[in-house]
Amino acid sequence: MPAIRHALTTKREDDFAAWYQEVIAAADMAEESGVRGCMVIKPWGYGIWERMQRLLDDRIKAAGVQNAYFPLFIPLKNFEREAEHVDGFAKEMAVVTHHRLIADGEGGLIPDPEAKLEEPLVVRPTSETIIGDAMSRWIQSWRDLPLRLNQWANVVRWEMRTRMFLRTSEFLWQEGHSAHATAQEAKDETMMALEMYRAFAEEDAAIPVIAGEKPENERFPGAVETWSIEAMMQDGKALQAGTSHYLGDNFAHAANIRYQNQKGRETLCHTVSWGMSTRMVGGLIMTHGDDDGLRVPPALAPFQVVILPMLRDKPEDEALLTYCEELRAAIAAQSALGEPVRVLHDKRPGKAAAKRWDWVRKGAPIIIEVGPRDMEKGVVSLLKRNALWNMETGKPAFENPGSGEVAEGMPAMLADMQAAMLVEARERREANIRRDVTDMDTLAAHFAREQKYPGWVEVQWAKPTGEALEKVVERLKELRLTLRNVPIDAAPVDGPCIFTGQPAVERVYVARAY
Amino acid sequence: MPAIRHALTTKREDDFAAWYQEVIAAADMAEESGVRGCMVIKPWGYGIWERMQRLLDDRIKAAGVQNAYFPLFIPLKNFEREAEHVDGFAKEMAVVTHHRLIADGEGGLIPDPEAKLEEPLVVRPTSETIIGDAMSRWIQSWRDLPLRLNQWANVVRWEMRTRMFLRTSEFLWQEGHSAHATAQEAKDETMMALEMYRAFAEEDAAIPVIAGEKPENERFPGAVETWSIEAMMQDGKALQAGTSHYLGDNFAHAANIRYQNQKGRETLCHTVSWGMSTRMVGGLIMTHGDDDGLRVPPALAPFQVVILPMLRDKPEDEALLTYCEELRAAIAAQSALGEPVRVLHDKRPGKAAAKRWDWVRKGAPIIIEVGPRDMEKGVVSLLKRNALWNMETGKPAFENPGSGEVAEGMPAMLADMQAAMLVEARERREANIRRDVTDMDTLAAHFAREQKYPGWVEVQWAKPTGEALEKVVERLKELRLTLRNVPIDAAPVDGPCIFTGQPAVERVYVARAY
Repeated sequence: MPAIRHALTTKREDDFAAWYQEVIAAADMAEESGVRGCMVIKPWGYGIWERMQRLLDDRIKAAGVQNAYFPLFIPLKNFEREAEHVDGFAKEMAVVTHHRLIADGEGGLIPDPEAKLEEPLVVRPTSETIIGDAMSRWIQSWRDLPLRLNQWANVVRWEMRTRMFLRTSEFLWQEGHSAHATAQEAKDETMMALEMYRAFAEEDAAIPVIAGEKPENERFPGAVETWSIEAMMQDGKALQAGTSHYLGDNFAHAANIRYQNQKGRETLCHTVSWGMSTRMVGGLIMTHGDDDGLRVPPALAPFQVVILPMLRDKPEDEALLTYCEELRAAIAAQSALGEPVRVLHDKRPGKAAAKRWDWVRKGAPIIIEVGPRDMEKGVVSLLKRNALWNMETGKPAFENPGSGEVAEGMPAMLADMQAAMLVEARERREANIRRDVTDMDTLAAHFAREQKYPGWVEVQWAKPTGEALEKVVERLKELRLTLRNVPIDAAPVDGPCIFTGQPAVERVYVARAY
Repeated sequence: MPAIRHALTTKREDDFAAWYQEVIAAADMAEESGVRGCMVIKPWGYGIWERMQRLLDDRIKAAGVQNAYFPLFIPLKNFEREAEHVDGFAKEMAVVTHHRLIADGEGGLIPDPEAKLEEPLVVRPTSETIIGDAMSRWIQSWRDLPLRLNQWANVVRWEMRTRMFLRTSEFLWQEGHSAHATAQEAKDETMMALEMYRAFAEEDAAIPVIAGEKPENERFPGAVETWSIEAMMQDGKALQAGTSHYLGDNFAHAANIRYQNQKGRETLCHTVSWGMSTRMVGGLIMTHGDDDGLRVPPALAPFQVVILPMLRDKPEDEALLTYCEELRAAIAAQSALGEPVRVLHDKRPGKAAAKRWDWVRKGAPIIIEVGPRDMEKGVVSLLKRNALWNMETGKPAFENPGSGEVAEGMPAMLADMQAAMLVEARERREANIRRDVTDMDTLAAHFAREQKYPGWVEVQWAKPTGEALEKVVERLKELRLTLRNVPIDAAPVDGPCIFTGQPAVERVYVARAY
């Protein structure tokens, strides 16, 4: 097999972390902003996030959840309620203490001492408490239930070590919050959100995920149950890509969210919250990226098709541009995956080959080059980003369909690629899950091996709680491992708990994690 | 004419400000959050903002501008550049000084003194400086130009007196920012954004606007030219509903945004910025609201059609629900104003009449009630929100089309209403503009009259600058008047300047304003 000259300098297998950073730079997705822990999301990265927003928001609306918007700033007292119950409470949050800047007389600016806030405000790290306040105002009677809200917002959690998309001090997300009359309805909503995330991840992002319940030690503080979707990155680590929390009546109690039931009796609501963030973009990179850059599944690609005319600064260029423009219009008139095809005719100055590699690194699903000779023959040169190389020649695997067929075939081509990317990722994940590990020595040996990307191990356990669970977590921590989740659709158990030796009651995933 | 029992308790003509607040509450659009100067935008208000976002964003994308996202926090030093040139610089901005909360030992929380930021961070009041920093990194050569970006974001300006949607400390907006090689290209972009706003306001929001240049005293600090769209509210006051700034090379100089031109020479860029905010929702209320609540033009209505089955808690309800569901599906299968019709079958418990008035107050364009007798006859009872009352009877002006016709006729009905609402608002505005005022006494008398809503006066002026302009602004301020803008498409001038007596060079609007 001839050597392929890949578009990136770092290969996944050589240094996955460096590769990740290189993809973000090479695909022009984001960069450090100069503001501690905050990134600038550049147009291609933001375009992918916008597509995620659009498709997830469509699902949210279809589920009957209503969007709203709550303040960025949360009064300190909202956190004091929580702090009362937490020993050694300390939270990394951005705190606003002043509302004016003045000149310091030496060319600099300082917060005006005269404009100190009586009560500092916290930049929201999540909005449970302030939405809880609103719910307590809005809900009086059983007729007001269920109350199902979602907001798209920026949130801030002061992070010491940051990594673009995966962990930044400011990030973008949606947070769903709902209040229900009964525990059962709230639990159903928790599962509704979890299933929505699973469907979004698999159908829209082509990222296969395991939906399941987080073990007790991984619960959101105050939650009765926390559920997650977990995705396997190409280095075998797990990424928690979305969570849904059944909060019981804990938050309702703290925020006084009560309703009068049909018998006229004051009753606490049961609440739920669920969130997915720009972290998903990091998951997309680490699921679909390759040694040539990002690959964006068609459903999430800001442009699904990019047409590159091979311009030569000659009068003939004009005919070529007309030909490409007609092609663009014909493709744009098609629908794929339920929407009009998003196609860009990239007429910017520059060599077509250089532009081709730009779009390869960005991961546009289909790249079409058209040169004068293509035009004469009535064909185009087409590259599929998920089948970039001809393995026999080591060169890009151009296909040369007739220009008439291209537009007509585009819906199927994009739909096939969407499906193929999910299959590819799922097969890779399944190949990297072991289900045959029944003792701790084997578990330790598996993850201690030279093998760089040991993947996940699904083990059987007795679901210990409290101190017994803490011991398990400690042992795993020594191996740099974590409990991921208890899958919804696991096979039945048939042996002892790998940790305690007691009869197992369920299966749980063990993995390194982001 | 029989007396009409309107749905609100306050009438516009009695107390416009109180009416405005009542509409917001009655239409369930927003409320005070308890956090100083910040509002909660409730689902119906946020749904309208989402529609505005969607339609304006479609225009932004069609113009080839790319969305991106920049940090919420801006380092102090970015403002110091600006402060150097401003005497007595003092800005009302939220300042983050700490990154952790700790318990104070008495059940409260305080910013951790150990976690004081070395340099305070400012919550963005606008993003010129931080986007300028990015542009200075991203632009090297003429090939990188134009660079045309937009971001949808929350911004914070500490406001002493706030009013929901019109002036809040935190608000939502889009801000467009671009860099160009030449002054002419930058000016063209400035006008592109202005025209985009005009088209959005008139075609999507059915709000007629005057597009024009703000006088010197109303320019954005640092701008060479500021352009605006101005809308007349029903109390005759002006609302600046969107601005577009040509910034010359002033901001490029401050942020060092330079490019190498085709001759290899380092050159300053010319930059542009433009913004529209949730203030537009306030403009929508004060343009289209009436004594029964809000009226939402169909293009911006989260639901354009609401179907209310008249349920009676009897077995017959089931057939009625089926009938309504079929109607919903038939209407939803139609397209109006270029999109599928948004229709809600409101099956919540409660009397249909009470729900009808809810939707009247919210301003849903079409309300369809269906009772058992309607079903028998194969008709529906239909209300158009912009023609709510039968003036002869003083009762709601129900129409009774056959259920088969309703879906078929919906596209035209909604398009007609969209057009009619713009015509109505434009006629009202034109009836409230005087163009015959040529001296200051008449101007003063016009605005001093008992007449509550004196509208606008278009006067001719010599376009004074500097001190001469300041004098004009002072005189107008005594009359509680402001200069709005110099309309693009005004009639030619034919007389002296109303302020200076010198020959006029253009026309300018004078009005009270929000």
